[in-house]
Amino acid sequence: MTTKHGSGEAAETLEELRSRLPDGAVVTDPVKTEAYRRDRAEDPDAGVPLAVVRPTCTEEVQEAVRFARATGTPIVPRGAGTSLSGGSTAQDGCLVLSLERMREITVDPVTRTVVAQPGALNGEVKEAAAAHGLWYPPDPASYTFCSIGGNIATNAGGLCCVKYGVTTDYVLGMTVVLADGRSVALGGPRLKDVAGLPLTKLFVGSEGTLGIITDVTLRLVPAQRAPQTLVATFPTLASATDAVLAITRTMRPSMLEFMDGPTLNAVEDETRMGLDRDAAAMLIVQSDESPDQAAAEVAEITRRCEAAGATEVFSTDDPEEGEAFVAARRLAIPAVEKKGTILLEDVGVPIPALGALVEGIAAISGRREVVVAVMAHAGDGNTHPLVVFDPADPGQRERAHLAYGEIMDLAVSLGGTITGEHGVGRLKEPWLAGYLGEDVMDLNRMVKAAFDPTGILNPGVMFAQPPRAHAR
Amino acid sequence: MTTKHGSGEAAETLEELRSRLPDGAVVTDPVKTEAYRRDRAEDPDAGVPLAVVRPTCTEEVQEAVRFARATGTPIVPRGAGTSLSGGSTAQDGCLVLSLERMREITVDPVTRTVVAQPGALNGEVKEAAAAHGLWYPPDPASYTFCSIGGNIATNAGGLCCVKYGVTTDYVLGMTVVLADGRSVALGGPRLKDVAGLPLTKLFVGSEGTLGIITDVTLRLVPAQRAPQTLVATFPTLASATDAVLAITRTMRPSMLEFMDGPTLNAVEDETRMGLDRDAAAMLIVQSDESPDQAAAEVAEITRRCEAAGATEVFSTDDPEEGEAFVAARRLAIPAVEKKGTILLEDVGVPIPALGALVEGIAAISGRREVVVAVMAHAGDGNTHPLVVFDPADPGQRERAHLAYGEIMDLAVSLGGTITGEHGVGRLKEPWLAGYLGEDVMDLNRMVKAAFDPTGILNPGVMFAQPPRAHAR
Repeated sequence: MTTKHGSGEAAETLEELRSRLPDGAVVTDPVKTEAYRRDRAEDPDAGVPLAVVRPTCTEEVQEAVRFARATGTPIVPRGAGTSLSGGSTAQDGCLVLSLERMREITVDPVTRTVVAQPGALNGEVKEAAAAHGLWYPPDPASYTFCSIGGNIATNAGGLCCVKYGVTTDYVLGMTVVLADGRSVALGGPRLKDVAGLPLTKLFVGSEGTLGIITDVTLRLVPAQRAPQTLVATFPTLASATDAVLAITRTMRPSMLEFMDGPTLNAVEDETRMGLDRDAAAMLIVQSDESPDQAAAEVAEITRRCEAAGATEVFSTDDPEEGEAFVAARRLAIPAVEKKGTILLEDVGVPIPALGALVEGIAAISGRREVVVAVMAHAGDGNTHPLVVFDPADPGQRERAHLAYGEIMDLAVSLGGTITGEHGVGRLKEPWLAGYLGEDVMDLNRMVKAAFDPTGILNPGVMFAQPPRAHAR
Repeated sequence: MTTKHGSGEAAETLEELRSRLPDGAVVTDPVKTEAYRRDRAEDPDAGVPLAVVRPTCTEEVQEAVRFARATGTPIVPRGAGTSLSGGSTAQDGCLVLSLERMREITVDPVTRTVVAQPGALNGEVKEAAAAHGLWYPPDPASYTFCSIGGNIATNAGGLCCVKYGVTTDYVLGMTVVLADGRSVALGGPRLKDVAGLPLTKLFVGSEGTLGIITDVTLRLVPAQRAPQTLVATFPTLASATDAVLAITRTMRPSMLEFMDGPTLNAVEDETRMGLDRDAAAMLIVQSDESPDQAAAEVAEITRRCEAAGATEVFSTDDPEEGEAFVAARRLAIPAVEKKGTILLEDVGVPIPALGALVEGIAAISGRREVVVAVMAHAGDGNTHPLVVFDPADPGQRERAHLAYGEIMDLAVSLGGTITGEHGVGRLKEPWLAGYLGEDVMDLNRMVKAAFDPTGILNPGVMFAQPPRAHAR
């Protein structure tokens, strides 16, 4: 194997790194490294890495970071490569630090915690917990193929957040390799611990810019009860978002998802499950209270949906029947992806602004003459508008990118955020300072500089990459 | 009024500060400032402040911080002065920044959030939420007289945490005045927002060492259902902690509190409510599920307590009857305080170590010949051992202090923390580096230095105070 993408000097040192790691840990064959260049953001400008390093333990991560520090090589950490914001897109001359071989999961059922290595999949953590009658709630739609390390890096959300919160609410501790190669243990299996600054929480959502997480201690809760499910269709966007507000202001369902007409139709094209193609929007709501209480909640939600103008409301206490609708919701992104190339948005607003957001998005869609399919974790005000375009049509591509930016501007003008759960990554870095304002962006840069003074950790993510010579 | 505790130069500038603030905002009369020197830690070495500043808005806080920055004056922020760890103990020559006049509370029932100024009491926030059928869960035992700002500063816990989590889980955003006098808005009323580093979370539990919080946006949840209550007494400490483990490994009660024999007896002395004076320990457990489900949970918890060896188990679905027991638990600290001077501990351990902790504390109590009354948020593994001593007996005082340190050492040796919810403050600063280890302590110092390079923000809290000339 040769290290043809590195400079002579770096290549020498890379050989030294190779000698300190197990066989196969350092991959430089371009045929093999190709698979590590892009994540689900599919950045056409993804760089060519110097090497892919696949450590099996914290000490090997430390070796890689020390190499990077000594040679000024950027490190791009990578879990399962499912970032939707370019958080693990390779940079020219970087080390891709793939954590795919660090997948151990150890459940402690008495403490009701799990220690997981970052390469373990979210779904594997859920399964390990379930074997003890326990539950790890955070559930990105990609939970069967996204890594827990990536979930921590982005403070990932999902469908359950409306009742059960986001990833950070479950993180009790972690081991982190710092930019200088030291490894530190933060927090631990203590349900309350306020000794020192809350550095554990600072790392949740730091997108690999402050350190490399090599294991994480997560809180588990008792297994979820079988939920009851309600599906309601609406003749207008406003009637659907009115129903959302009517529900959330006094109730706390365990799921409250939204799909608009274009999304419904894309899903129906895939599933032929009989969804109402004429509906402007559909809500999928679940209650996981005890059976009597769940039935009462579903009845109350039915009344509120009908009062808001629902065309049809269907409910079931059969978990499998309910799961079919949830599976349809999880299928929404892949279903829309079949309609063209997509730009995936992740904007969120305070819940009362949800109606203005989805109606404004429909207006942008009309004005820019591109399809925008909107699905949302409606109970959190977190939406995923998918801007669909034909990549072969340059005019449409340009209008799609304009619409993408306009949707972010709209969300921010409504008091919302440019990203609710996918992260800033490289894709939204250009919008971050505008959203946060210069003073808060300064604070972010100050913390970044303290933890990573030479800027080797995931450069370009959240923080504009300093200009550097391309090794390509 | 004169500023007799300041140097001539500082006094001049203090007059300038006075001129920029409303009448009565700067207090220098030593009779009046005396009340601001100590918090509930009752530090006999509390300093004499240069002045107490009582701002009414963010801009006035900024004025005070700019003065402090310009003159190198330490700032000690103070909410209701209920810190149990000396977090708001005055330092010689400092400004005490009392937030008692910033008490506005604004509930947004549609977004289900509240914006509160730091001087508002926790109980006032709860009341404001309740007026809209909503609930702010975190409930330190002092909730009727502790401030929400202090709760944020310490990431306060309470009795509900076993099911509903701690303060940080409810903090969505805040306004912070930084050490250089800038004011920044972090986060906001968005239930999911991952744009930028999670700086909001970094401030929750920062104990006034990184900035001054001038308002906070908190998430609310629907009102809690009336709970059902179970009280069980046990013949040994081990049988009680066995019951705790048997409950928490598969259940999630809404309260799970522990009192040992000395605590029970102190409470019974106050209440004459008929508590079993011979019991080694008592558990108070609540379920706030829907009535049928709560009844089933209470029945199951009864079985588990009996299986663990409970002497007597009593349960009630009458909320008022249940509240009498909870009130008894809340009374525990004041009741024990009547027995002598106390050193209040706040150690926490992973739940499986709870038995070893309470038995080890009993052994320390015996060896040091001082009463140690233990109450605990048992479901979180968070205990409050109260070391009781006669201040007139120097030997007993010394043994009490030895026991206090030994309890922390014991907790740490069991994988526990030196503080679960009260904070490090000035009282536990000497133990922090030993607990965290030098590398993590370094990280803490690095973050502190980035946010507060001149060390004016609550010096001595969490971080050893640099030696400085005493103005006293």
